[in-house]
Amino acid sequence: MEKGFIQSLLGQVKEKKSHVCVGLDPDLRRFPPAIREKIDGGNCSKKEISKAFLKFNKQVIDAVQEFAIAIKIQIAWFEEYGHWGLEALESTLEHARKKDLLTILDIKRGDIGNTAGAYARAYLGFVNVGGGKQESGFDAQAITLNPYLGKDSLLPFFEIMKERNRGAFILVKTSNPGSYHIQDQVLRSGKSVYEHTAQLVDEWSRDLIPKGSFYSNLGAVVGATYPDAARCLRQIMPRSYFLVPGFGAQGGRAEDLIPFFNEDGLGAVINASRSIIYAFAESAEGVPWPRAVEEAANSMRKDINLVLRQAGLGQ
Amino acid sequence: MEKGFIQSLLGQVKEKKSHVCVGLDPDLRRFPPAIREKIDGGNCSKKEISKAFLKFNKQVIDAVQEFAIAIKIQIAWFEEYGHWGLEALESTLEHARKKDLLTILDIKRGDIGNTAGAYARAYLGFVNVGGGKQESGFDAQAITLNPYLGKDSLLPFFEIMKERNRGAFILVKTSNPGSYHIQDQVLRSGKSVYEHTAQLVDEWSRDLIPKGSFYSNLGAVVGATYPDAARCLRQIMPRSYFLVPGFGAQGGRAEDLIPFFNEDGLGAVINASRSIIYAFAESAEGVPWPRAVEEAANSMRKDINLVLRQAGLGQ
Repeated sequence: MEKGFIQSLLGQVKEKKSHVCVGLDPDLRRFPPAIREKIDGGNCSKKEISKAFLKFNKQVIDAVQEFAIAIKIQIAWFEEYGHWGLEALESTLEHARKKDLLTILDIKRGDIGNTAGAYARAYLGFVNVGGGKQESGFDAQAITLNPYLGKDSLLPFFEIMKERNRGAFILVKTSNPGSYHIQDQVLRSGKSVYEHTAQLVDEWSRDLIPKGSFYSNLGAVVGATYPDAARCLRQIMPRSYFLVPGFGAQGGRAEDLIPFFNEDGLGAVINASRSIIYAFAESAEGVPWPRAVEEAANSMRKDINLVLRQAGLGQ
Repeated sequence: MEKGFIQSLLGQVKEKKSHVCVGLDPDLRRFPPAIREKIDGGNCSKKEISKAFLKFNKQVIDAVQEFAIAIKIQIAWFEEYGHWGLEALESTLEHARKKDLLTILDIKRGDIGNTAGAYARAYLGFVNVGGGKQESGFDAQAITLNPYLGKDSLLPFFEIMKERNRGAFILVKTSNPGSYHIQDQVLRSGKSVYEHTAQLVDEWSRDLIPKGSFYSNLGAVVGATYPDAARCLRQIMPRSYFLVPGFGAQGGRAEDLIPFFNEDGLGAVINASRSIIYAFAESAEGVPWPRAVEEAANSMRKDINLVLRQAGLGQ
């Protein structure tokens, strides 16, 4: 069996003393002037933008590799550029694998069983290319999934996760303000929809714990902007790692992160996207942009570690 | 303003006397032997499969064009083949546009606002390619969306829908057996989660009704396998068209479709995928495969029309 997602993640936490995940949301409008100017002055096309994405992504990966335990790649920014965008995504994933950086592909897919099978093969598995032959798909280490369609829409992912020891994070309570529209609705049982989803995730996660591990390969997305929800969700899903978006640009702060962690000082991967990868916009003149990105990742790492230490977690 | 989605759809219903949408889920394993054999004996690769997809799709589009009011393209089957697959998808959409067949791209996306903007530009809008220039994205007439993240995750789509008069269908009650896990949970108000979602869709849909139209550009996905749910949902969302998957291979039957329609005999697009596009597997020897596909679409059209006539709808 390949080295599993959750074991690799825990190995990275220990080795790098970090809980930081860097979100790769390549947005041309915010690129370093050196990259952007070349496009604006040159041959404007989806192909050129996608090439610039790859160039930017590789430098971000190299810059954060020492301090980040994973990168979370948001596929929407690549899909925007059609097949050229996906080609850049494939090469970005390849570069991350070369650099031994774990990849969480933020796809938020969810569909009926038959179709979910196609997504599962695409992102975590092997794809049939005819003549009984197979090729690897995008080959992410982990993905995000949307639970609205229920368990049978997730089973094809669970199967490949078991086979290849890969990971997934199911949306439970998302970081955006409108998440209350459905997720916060209160059920007759007195529980909210997100608590109900969390109970399902906990149930499903038990079947996806690799041998010898406390943590499951099945985690949950819990927004940094909702520490109170996190406190209760941490109880409901003790074996699930939390992928915590919303830190930084969306308003989540280091001092609010404690409830996302277990007492072992583990259990949460804190993601920041824009505040890290576009950190150069705020940095002093003369600092090379990848250096500003690296420093932002390290500074976030230290902020989180300090808060955990002050709370006496994982000591 | 471009001719809008819902007006075009209603025009097609009238012209073709049809409520049939054909689902394009290209699955190599079920392809006509003539296409499959060439791959199995030849150069097996994602590129070759994607070429075969395009060939198959074009023939399906041509075959069903007379009897189908739209095709619903399931993007998962294309994503499975990475950037090659998306290239085939782009060309498939182009072919459908040439043949004046409305396209519903089944993407089931849902993400926070910033990211939702990228998806919205990709699938319904225009994409920034630098130097102040823009290019069309996938340019579907309509898409499907997942509501789990709430209204702010949908607003970027609504904006482009208004601008370009495009359509979307929000997942309300899906056709799969596991849809009860979340959608059927009962809220303190006594309503189910799917009824609650339906009320939100109705509220949002009011803002997306083109001038002079009764129906909104914002519709709902309601599975053919749940006619009882459809009866109540039809009341909650009178102005929303239903996209009804689950007919045929998933078990939905023509006689169960009445509750999905309004008294005007409108309001539902009935989708069948596998039972139409792979109909040749059941057809008599010697019948060319596109002919079998065409006949399956026409026969479904007639079955539905008969049931509507017997129920006195739209007379």
